[in-house]
Amino acid sequence: MKVFRRLSCALPALMVLCGGAATADTVADLAAKAKSSTWGYDFLADLTTDIGPRMAGSPAEHAAADWAALRLRQAGFDEVHIEKFPVTYWARGAEEASVTAPRTQPLAVAALGHSVATPAGGIDAEIVLFKSYQALLDAPAGSLKGKIALVSQRMVRAQNGEGYGVAVRARVEGPSEAAKRGALALVIRSVGTDNHRIAHTGLTIYAKDAPKIPAAAISNPDADLIERMAAKGPVKLHLKLENKATENTDTFTVVGELRGRERPDQVVLLGGHLDSWELGTGAIDDGAGVAIMAGAAKLIADLPQRPKRTIRVVMFGAEEIDKAAEAYYTAHRGEAGSIVVAGESDFGAGKIFNAELPAGALDGAYARQLAAALLPLGVDMLNKPSHEGGADLEFLHEQGGVPIVDFGQDGTHYFDIHHTADDTLDKVDPAELAQNIAVWASFAWLTADGDVDFRALSAGAGTAK
Amino acid sequence: MKVFRRLSCALPALMVLCGGAATADTVADLAAKAKSSTWGYDFLADLTTDIGPRMAGSPAEHAAADWAALRLRQAGFDEVHIEKFPVTYWARGAEEASVTAPRTQPLAVAALGHSVATPAGGIDAEIVLFKSYQALLDAPAGSLKGKIALVSQRMVRAQNGEGYGVAVRARVEGPSEAAKRGALALVIRSVGTDNHRIAHTGLTIYAKDAPKIPAAAISNPDADLIERMAAKGPVKLHLKLENKATENTDTFTVVGELRGRERPDQVVLLGGHLDSWELGTGAIDDGAGVAIMAGAAKLIADLPQRPKRTIRVVMFGAEEIDKAAEAYYTAHRGEAGSIVVAGESDFGAGKIFNAELPAGALDGAYARQLAAALLPLGVDMLNKPSHEGGADLEFLHEQGGVPIVDFGQDGTHYFDIHHTADDTLDKVDPAELAQNIAVWASFAWLTADGDVDFRALSAGAGTAK
Repeated sequence: MKVFRRLSCALPALMVLCGGAATADTVADLAAKAKSSTWGYDFLADLTTDIGPRMAGSPAEHAAADWAALRLRQAGFDEVHIEKFPVTYWARGAEEASVTAPRTQPLAVAALGHSVATPAGGIDAEIVLFKSYQALLDAPAGSLKGKIALVSQRMVRAQNGEGYGVAVRARVEGPSEAAKRGALALVIRSVGTDNHRIAHTGLTIYAKDAPKIPAAAISNPDADLIERMAAKGPVKLHLKLENKATENTDTFTVVGELRGRERPDQVVLLGGHLDSWELGTGAIDDGAGVAIMAGAAKLIADLPQRPKRTIRVVMFGAEEIDKAAEAYYTAHRGEAGSIVVAGESDFGAGKIFNAELPAGALDGAYARQLAAALLPLGVDMLNKPSHEGGADLEFLHEQGGVPIVDFGQDGTHYFDIHHTADDTLDKVDPAELAQNIAVWASFAWLTADGDVDFRALSAGAGTAK
Repeated sequence: MKVFRRLSCALPALMVLCGGAATADTVADLAAKAKSSTWGYDFLADLTTDIGPRMAGSPAEHAAADWAALRLRQAGFDEVHIEKFPVTYWARGAEEASVTAPRTQPLAVAALGHSVATPAGGIDAEIVLFKSYQALLDAPAGSLKGKIALVSQRMVRAQNGEGYGVAVRARVEGPSEAAKRGALALVIRSVGTDNHRIAHTGLTIYAKDAPKIPAAAISNPDADLIERMAAKGPVKLHLKLENKATENTDTFTVVGELRGRERPDQVVLLGGHLDSWELGTGAIDDGAGVAIMAGAAKLIADLPQRPKRTIRVVMFGAEEIDKAAEAYYTAHRGEAGSIVVAGESDFGAGKIFNAELPAGALDGAYARQLAAALLPLGVDMLNKPSHEGGADLEFLHEQGGVPIVDFGQDGTHYFDIHHTADDTLDKVDPAELAQNIAVWASFAWLTADGDVDFRALSAGAGTAK
């Protein structure tokens, strides 16, 4: 079969057809290898075992970058390097919280990332309970003076994780909003969908026009407990956080490329982030993402020849503290036009079940080819354009005009684990990780070995059907 | 319908038949009320909210006993009192564990109950990994000198919880066995079936002929991590435990009775335990059990008249440290003969799906009546005799000859939570709790308002078919 094809494809009239068949063969081959190869999973297992937690700016993150770069070199990537830029390194210290009235009960707590510490003895105060974040916003100025504000709004579980965007406002903006109303500290119900005594951390961002107050999350069962207590009478909390922040510490982004054999200046960018919160080992967030992208590229690296265009794997540093996207864009602004398309894997290893392409690319030969490749993997091509490509691509896309793709993963259980001590290797299903690798490898190879021009298709999207 | 029955039952010839029908009515009524009543669930919710953790010998356990006694009095129990006896109160202190080589990673740890503390600076040593407890037992004397023994045997999940008995040996006996072989400390994989970063505590019992070494459990994901590390090379741990033990502190058992209207000296005993480990709030272990038993008795207390025999609810103190069974038997040895039958609920609130009666009672009118009552609740009467009735009944049964019943609950997920910080109210399904209450209420009423004599039936079991 293969011999026949190779011979007959020498006839010019058959080249287009044969090219399509050979392409389909390669894609099927990549998908099969994704299933049998353990390279991607081993990458993730070793990253979480040999390195572990990788807080942006930490020595562990530095070690992870060196480790990942070595791994890419060993895997045969053509060009591997590390880019660095300064960030504030925030290190968690001892932390404790408890209900002190009506009766002492311990709470499972985690300081929010980049929260300030409490005074040395901690803070002891009565709470004001808000069952929604909006209720806190509705509280008048001064109404929280001397109190700890406690927002117990619960995150809603959804397959696509949409509940996160709603619930996370209390974490990101809540501390300053509580401070503006006089609060001594903000405690939130964890932004997470589980019911374990494990708190979810995550970045908080202080507003410039408000005092910086300590902020922490308690676990869902603890928030339930306090709601029940508060229904009976006043509740007092003790909160003590001993974090420290160090400015101007380097964070590290690892880049590895498979240089295109014909048009190396045209780049298909596959992103994930190497940094993680430090409570867990960053397995689903985002060890899985970098393992998926490196694993997909590794399958292509092992093909007999490089695709026509360059495939670039970028393992961003400092995504969790919201510094990666702007830094990468600032450093690479001049090359944005050479990036054909970018995609990011940053939603764990849940199965991919749908795909969105840039506007204008939703039909045509490329889309049909990709749809045919993804359908056997259980992925639908949606008839709507991609609009969100991952946090690290935000500046490339919005400022740099880089087209993006979005492969939707099943995140039903992602926020049970996200930003917790529970983010460990056992939460990743090797078969689901392999499906992700198969999808990204298929996409990367089809795009890098073809000549689809998303910018041109998008420009024509207004006129052509 | 009810009027007709009441009238016709006045005719002596119909009394037996009508008694059966009235009995069935009462049982159906109790089951319906179990479904609609929130008394049992409220008991559990308030116990976990207003009291929380209740370590044997702690002030909180004392408060819980006073609280529970008041609750039973308010519920109309005829006789409520508290019995106390001295135990050693073990209080958890600060505790920390980490891998220190090949690379530092924190571990989720919990000291085993009644473990001794480590020296002030903690213990730092290389581990010897045993993938089974048997492998540790097979290690020669002196072979663990200067090491931390680490047993990573995993507990097997089973509906009836049978994996616990296998895995728990490492926790109960392991520290002394490791000490006999020279170990500085024992660390075990948690005896639990979950994969969360939450360690499972539980009692350890030191042998008289071995040094007392510190002992702790790490979470399942942490044990996985160490197994992966150990496959690559030597692993060192740091372990620091600061527990304290205080001897001769009182523990408390709460007793409440519904006095029988005809034969008050014949007692149907319903047990559970009020004490709990202190990491969680003791919701499934065993707040649920005492709520179920008290909830069942409360439904009977609300009937127009007391049953013929006495129903006694016993909320044992110090079950978790294995002191309740002997203490209760010692204090009540003389009355053992008056206890018609005893049952205990100490396996969470998972649905009851089977029932075992004492030998000799497996057929006959009583068994048919009970089977008919339980079938609509989704419970099979098994054709095999009960042999285990709950830890607190062990001495009553084995030394005192008290017949026992066993209602088998679905414990598929029980050991995900058991003895952890995760043992909180949200883990209890109110509908499943209500089914348990319905089963125990049906059993208690049928047994207390009848005249079944399990001892006589068992004595005849060898001869009669």
